[in-house]
Amino acid sequence: MGCGTTGTSLALALTGAGVRVALADDDPRAVAEAAALGAGTAWTPALPPADLVVVAVPPAAVADVLYDAQSRGLGQVYTDTAATKEIVSAEAELRGCDLKGYVPGHPLAGPDGPGRAAADAARFTGRPWVLCPYDTTPAAALETVAATLDLVGARRVDLAPHVHDRMLAELSHGPHLVAAALATRFADGSEPLLELAGDRLREAVRGAAGDPWLWSEVLAHNAGPVADVLERIAGQLTRAAAILREGDPGAPLELALTLEEGRRGQAALRRAAEPGTLEDVPARRRS
Amino acid sequence: MGCGTTGTSLALALTGAGVRVALADDDPRAVAEAAALGAGTAWTPALPPADLVVVAVPPAAVADVLYDAQSRGLGQVYTDTAATKEIVSAEAELRGCDLKGYVPGHPLAGPDGPGRAAADAARFTGRPWVLCPYDTTPAAALETVAATLDLVGARRVDLAPHVHDRMLAELSHGPHLVAAALATRFADGSEPLLELAGDRLREAVRGAAGDPWLWSEVLAHNAGPVADVLERIAGQLTRAAAILREGDPGAPLELALTLEEGRRGQAALRRAAEPGTLEDVPARRRS
Repeated sequence: MGCGTTGTSLALALTGAGVRVALADDDPRAVAEAAALGAGTAWTPALPPADLVVVAVPPAAVADVLYDAQSRGLGQVYTDTAATKEIVSAEAELRGCDLKGYVPGHPLAGPDGPGRAAADAARFTGRPWVLCPYDTTPAAALETVAATLDLVGARRVDLAPHVHDRMLAELSHGPHLVAAALATRFADGSEPLLELAGDRLREAVRGAAGDPWLWSEVLAHNAGPVADVLERIAGQLTRAAAILREGDPGAPLELALTLEEGRRGQAALRRAAEPGTLEDVPARRRS
Repeated sequence: MGCGTTGTSLALALTGAGVRVALADDDPRAVAEAAALGAGTAWTPALPPADLVVVAVPPAAVADVLYDAQSRGLGQVYTDTAATKEIVSAEAELRGCDLKGYVPGHPLAGPDGPGRAAADAARFTGRPWVLCPYDTTPAAALETVAATLDLVGARRVDLAPHVHDRMLAELSHGPHLVAAALATRFADGSEPLLELAGDRLREAVRGAAGDPWLWSEVLAHNAGPVADVLERIAGQLTRAAAILREGDPGAPLELALTLEEGRRGQAALRRAAEPGTLEDVPARRRS
């Protein structure tokens, strides 16, 4: 349910793995486009309940879509793909959804935005896919979702919803706003500046390419943890600016210590992506 | 003079263009390594004055190295490659350098850091190279430097030193500190976080890979303009955090407006890099 980039990519991957996929979306054109890509066939009321219903809609819509789908008996087990988990899973509970059949999830399937937004069957291969089961989630429901992650090559990582949200604030939601703040300076298309811009800056702001409405909803859904990250970074930048303003001869030393810490963080992130560092450690899966 | 990445890359490019290059560096190993790459031969006192001496040393060292080289009569014309220009060109003047033979310069030759730091003859091809001639710079000296830029395929852009510094604060120096601030969170190698990190975050912090000492010197040399950029971004992040903290139902709208501005800035930067957008407009050269 939901034929955006995530939903269509998952449908393509599952169809490619031999799974029969029924596509649904409020927008019939989205269904038609996904079907034309080979992602599956349009859902019809005549179909029997699905083994798994994937609710691939924006965070604020998950609870309603899930409740509605469960009320209509569309599937045996349900999951979602929203980028925030604490509010989404709490809303599902408050809305009265059947939690025994719902496993909140979030595929960390990487960049979207121009040039990368297209649906892609390989989108989840080797990438983490977080599951946030409730304490009461039956093992069978969890297994159905986990088996689906296996089929598309994702790495399952189980986290509590609030832990997921804090981590995503650090890894994605906070950095997204930082990229946007960096990029706003260039929104007026100031040509002399643009003429001198280099690839490093372009890389740094690429995150700002995402859909503003979807992202603002994600940020508002993860407000506290994201605000923590933004305030920490703002504090670091304010402190660096104060050091520079003071014109102290010791300024280069103090700045170099911050830059050295940043260099070490960059190196740690780089190493984490090298083959054999993390991907080959299946023991890390908490299942 | 100076066989770091910039000096060696330029020497490689000029040697490849048929220019005889003499290499000098305080560190004889750096000269030997550059010579072994084919960048030229070690400078000796027996050589006649060079047509052009390129002072490729960190910003704080330029004036002294230039003064010393001019005193010894090592060349006809001099330029430098430091990433800040207002203080460097003022220091050269205060130090008593011969300004008639010195054209301050800065190649915007793109990313450094692990995996990209290696000297590369193509480092300047199609990239901007800023020149900041003094009002009194003779046309012949400027022509010597400009011809060298042509030989290595760089795009000459003439700017006043303070304009260069403000632009670089926006394009490079400020974003460098933002990347470092983003990356510090990961310096402790926190594994659960690193396991979930994606390529977008890795791209965003790649700028933090540069040498902390060189960068802190660059930042301190361009203190005011960099502080302006950092304070502006810190203000944007603080404002976004406040919106999120307020929990106002209008928060998504207000955030979406900022994100939309960021998205437009990102798009402008992306378009500026597309072939035929800026590179093919030689009329932009202010020579």
